[in-house]
Amino acid sequence: MASYLVTGSSRGLGLALISRLASLPAADVGKIIATARQDNSPQLKEIVDASSGRVEIVKLDVTNKLSVQEAANLVEGKLHGKGLDYLVNNAGLMDRSPDGLAGMDNLDDIFHTNVTSVHNVTQAFLPLLRKGKKKIVINISTTLGSFAKAEIYRQSPTPAYKITKAALNMLTVQYAQQYEPDGFTFLAVTPGWLRTDLGSSRADLPVETGAEKVVDILQQTGPHQNGKFVNIHVPGWENPLGNNQYDGQEVGW
Amino acid sequence: MASYLVTGSSRGLGLALISRLASLPAADVGKIIATARQDNSPQLKEIVDASSGRVEIVKLDVTNKLSVQEAANLVEGKLHGKGLDYLVNNAGLMDRSPDGLAGMDNLDDIFHTNVTSVHNVTQAFLPLLRKGKKKIVINISTTLGSFAKAEIYRQSPTPAYKITKAALNMLTVQYAQQYEPDGFTFLAVTPGWLRTDLGSSRADLPVETGAEKVVDILQQTGPHQNGKFVNIHVPGWENPLGNNQYDGQEVGW
Repeated sequence: MASYLVTGSSRGLGLALISRLASLPAADVGKIIATARQDNSPQLKEIVDASSGRVEIVKLDVTNKLSVQEAANLVEGKLHGKGLDYLVNNAGLMDRSPDGLAGMDNLDDIFHTNVTSVHNVTQAFLPLLRKGKKKIVINISTTLGSFAKAEIYRQSPTPAYKITKAALNMLTVQYAQQYEPDGFTFLAVTPGWLRTDLGSSRADLPVETGAEKVVDILQQTGPHQNGKFVNIHVPGWENPLGNNQYDGQEVGW
Repeated sequence: MASYLVTGSSRGLGLALISRLASLPAADVGKIIATARQDNSPQLKEIVDASSGRVEIVKLDVTNKLSVQEAANLVEGKLHGKGLDYLVNNAGLMDRSPDGLAGMDNLDDIFHTNVTSVHNVTQAFLPLLRKGKKKIVINISTTLGSFAKAEIYRQSPTPAYKITKAALNMLTVQYAQQYEPDGFTFLAVTPGWLRTDLGSSRADLPVETGAEKVVDILQQTGPHQNGKFVNIHVPGWENPLGNNQYDGQEVGW
């Protein structure tokens, strides 16, 4: 009966991750902590109400170190002396800059949310993760942050997203290296292009599919994948050349 | 007779780049703009005094957008209607975090200097670069920002440097993609491990060697290398396996 914490749970992928986790047997998935900057999401409340106490909401603004520490203290109380098994750093921002780099005036802010905040949240929950049995941390990244795939995404007008997610990937590598001797598993995961506010309605996959597949990764991963950048696996997305963009394999950095 | 601008020229690699450029024939290297946050470096003044007016100092704090714009206006005047041919984004910071990630409390600041400031400087000088004949921009990066080499640098206690330089590399790719149709060349260059304040006295190479080799890259590069991450070339650094860590080739991201 493992415990989970997901940041940015009021909507989008975070909300869908909480919904997916709550749908799994309580024997596998025990306590589920849904954190959000605004803790009044009606959809999230619905999941909580139907969860027989398994899902709890904790207010957490990832960009605010004080809020992060307060949340960590609250969660410690809710776990009643047990550790936290899984942390999913999901909260994040994407820019839209139709004018390209000339219009990119928010790089510091997006970096603070997408990278520094992941660092601060991870540090704050590290003591609880150390007490956990799994010690698994997933940072939600994107193939748009991949150098190997940069040519594919040339036309995507989100330079700050690409730059900060490349940085998040390098943060993930740093954590993987430093905490490997302590039994931790850190990985960067690309959840696919999902139909959310961030991904738009033109995206490839329903958010529920992305959430299901990310939870699959969560439950199957371990030290063998420490420090890797991992794709979701959705059969049926093969292109005419037989390559599946959602192949469940490692992504090139 | 090309024109050059180097940021962070009061010491270290920046100072050595100015010195190297000033040593080259005026027929090749014309106006050299040395920018620095503090414009009172005695070593820099010495180079200026011996340069017969070719080297000029312009005060520029890369972290301050107002200072960046003022410097761009000043440089425009100094170029007398001509464009700027080469921009070297050299100013940068390295962290030292002996406690690893637990001690990394300066990520936002180092990102602002190493990435956002490069963006702001490049944007401010873009109109002058457009008027230049070469349109070449070099971002001084490091193999510590390379995912491909992360394992080699596992023990190097500079997480913020690694993370922000990976982000700088992705910024470089964004610029390379966007401005390629306009004839620009953007590349990330690793100048080697140099004996400077940043590199320490234990480093591989005298700073003069790094500067000479970076200037070689500057003068030999062009659109064929747009968007690449390039190593300096220093013969004689072959290891017992025959690999030279300063092989002048592309570096894996």
